Amino acid sequence: MPEVHAARRDRLRSRLADLDAPAALLTRLLNVRYLTGFTGSNAALLISADGTDVLATDGRYVTQSAAQVPDLERVIGSRIMSALAVRSGQRRLAYESHDLTVDGLAALTEAVPDVEFVSLRESVEALRAVKDAAEIELVRRACAIADRALADLLAAGGITPGRTELAIARDLESRMLDLGAEAPSFETIVAGGPHSAIPHHEPTDRPVQRGDLVKCDFGATYAGYHSDMTRTLVVGRPAGWQRDIYDMVADAQRIGREALAVGVDCAALDTAVRDRIADAGHGEHYLHGLGHGVGLEIHEAPALGPGAPGRLEDRMLVTVEPGIYLEGQGGVRIEDTLVVGSDGPELLTLTPRDLCIV
Amino acid sequence: MPEVHAARRDRLRSRLADLDAPAALLTRLLNVRYLTGFTGSNAALLISADGTDVLATDGRYVTQSAAQVPDLERVIGSRIMSALAVRSGQRRLAYESHDLTVDGLAALTEAVPDVEFVSLRESVEALRAVKDAAEIELVRRACAIADRALADLLAAGGITPGRTELAIARDLESRMLDLGAEAPSFETIVAGGPHSAIPHHEPTDRPVQRGDLVKCDFGATYAGYHSDMTRTLVVGRPAGWQRDIYDMVADAQRIGREALAVGVDCAALDTAVRDRIADAGHGEHYLHGLGHGVGLEIHEAPALGPGAPGRLEDRMLVTVEPGIYLEGQGGVRIEDTLVVGSDGPELLTLTPRDLCIV
Repeated sequence: MPEVHAARRDRLRSRLADLDAPAALLTRLLNVRYLTGFTGSNAALLISADGTDVLATDGRYVTQSAAQVPDLERVIGSRIMSALAVRSGQRRLAYESHDLTVDGLAALTEAVPDVEFVSLRESVEALRAVKDAAEIELVRRACAIADRALADLLAAGGITPGRTELAIARDLESRMLDLGAEAPSFETIVAGGPHSAIPHHEPTDRPVQRGDLVKCDFGATYAGYHSDMTRTLVVGRPAGWQRDIYDMVADAQRIGREALAVGVDCAALDTAVRDRIADAGHGEHYLHGLGHGVGLEIHEAPALGPGAPGRLEDRMLVTVEPGIYLEGQGGVRIEDTLVVGSDGPELLTLTPRDLCIV
Repeated sequence: MPEVHAARRDRLRSRLADLDAPAALLTRLLNVRYLTGFTGSNAALLISADGTDVLATDGRYVTQSAAQVPDLERVIGSRIMSALAVRSGQRRLAYESHDLTVDGLAALTEAVPDVEFVSLRESVEALRAVKDAAEIELVRRACAIADRALADLLAAGGITPGRTELAIARDLESRMLDLGAEAPSFETIVAGGPHSAIPHHEPTDRPVQRGDLVKCDFGATYAGYHSDMTRTLVVGRPAGWQRDIYDMVADAQRIGREALAVGVDCAALDTAVRDRIADAGHGEHYLHGLGHGVGLEIHEAPALGPGAPGRLEDRMLVTVEPGIYLEGQGGVRIEDTLVVGSDGPELLTLTPRDLCIV
């Protein structure tokens, strides 16, 4: 889809004037992928105000870069950043100061000492926060894979006393791959019993037991795009405290989902959900932000947390994932991936949010 | 194994005097892991000449950091780099200029304007190039998993006409996970027929066909440590050209393996193998370096390629992986992971290197 990439590059190009820079040198691989479609592990991209865009990579990617980026001039070699800086012929270049290391900038400055480098800031990440239709479809597909994998796992009795967290996580990941995911979005979290109180628990060989809360936080990657969902289940009859914190988190999560609207302040959104949990007396048991953007990265702009900058825009993709964690006892998190829209939010993860008893 | 990590920190500590720095601020996550055992996704580490070492991470990792790094003082919070810089009380700090971004250094300098920052260079990576006994055992285990997975795959008839590259890659990865790998070392390469001529091919839904060369480049991760192995097989009776390039690569690879010895120049090692392939008339079909160090990263120091700096040292772990790639036709690569030792090299990947016909 070269025209999609060209449109993205044009949006970035229109920002160059603000920086008084005739061209930008992109080094962050994900941003190069977003702007060109190139998926190799080494690349840089020159975007010029005059419309001359050039991709650089190394000899391993001659064939792949020609296939993925047929619409751009390609430079193959080593020292690709300085090669592009020279190729630009410019004396002032914007660059990604949040990506380039101190050593990387020093090497570049040594190679082209006459060029003045100015920060592009996170301009491409800012563009990426608002998705185009193609991206929303890819995340929708990734979410559908995760939904289906969990439904199949549950239908097959995959979460059952005696089965280890690791075995459940492997099963879930394997089902996502079978359903067409290219990879899990991140290391699948399956956390049973007291482990469910650890926000980012790595699965262990602890078997799930009757009476456990089991928190599953997982997602699928499809064509580079990520889904993210958390569901917390209970094994056997839920105890009163389990149902209590589940209901609180579910209500707080509903408040967060329903508040997603164009123009809403990101920090205020976090506050609305946080207040609900604090009012229930669990403020100190909610250990993280409300959510985050999702796309080519599992965590990207916008941030939804205390003090997060900015407001929601049409076609942003975000997660909403409050949780309550009672150390040594157990925890609940419920998370969905949604599209912000002028007609209200659209859920992409469709697994029900009622307390599931297995 | 706190004593292993303490010994590694002491080795780094002894380098601080050379930099005239009373302390170092480590930001590269893999280096923090190497020096402390901490595996979370956010951390920084202060190493002081006076022996005061402090780990910093955020609220998600309170429990995990206490469990993994019981021997160090821990700071939990945000802005962990500046927190450690303040905690050090020093006016001069070494830092990882190859890891910290330009923006990261600017934020740090703003937070602690009185501190002078000097580059630690890749001191930790240099330490990591020489493995301790515990590390060699972990890579040995990772290599054994990969060997066994391939043997089981072949015994099960897993590479057979009609089966796709993707299905074979999935099967191999699944077997490694079943055998105890925590993950594949990298995206498994299975490249059949003309795809075998692409050095870094991503598996597709192309079915393997009779007469194909099938190149499998894969590895297992075990406790953070990677194995790396490539074998190229042929489906059905090999054609003359296939056997010819196979024999050439096998001989070149043997030359490379046998030349691994303490004190050998890394660039000269590459040249010895490259000359063998050039003498056979295939110099232009050998598209990459001879190999690389392997450990916590799949590619780490030392590099073994044209112009690579340095010499081999006892207990370095490296790959030897020459290849010949005939575009549109097919290619062969043979790769092993080995330990450099004073008694000669030790192979860790034990799968036979004879041409395997399936």
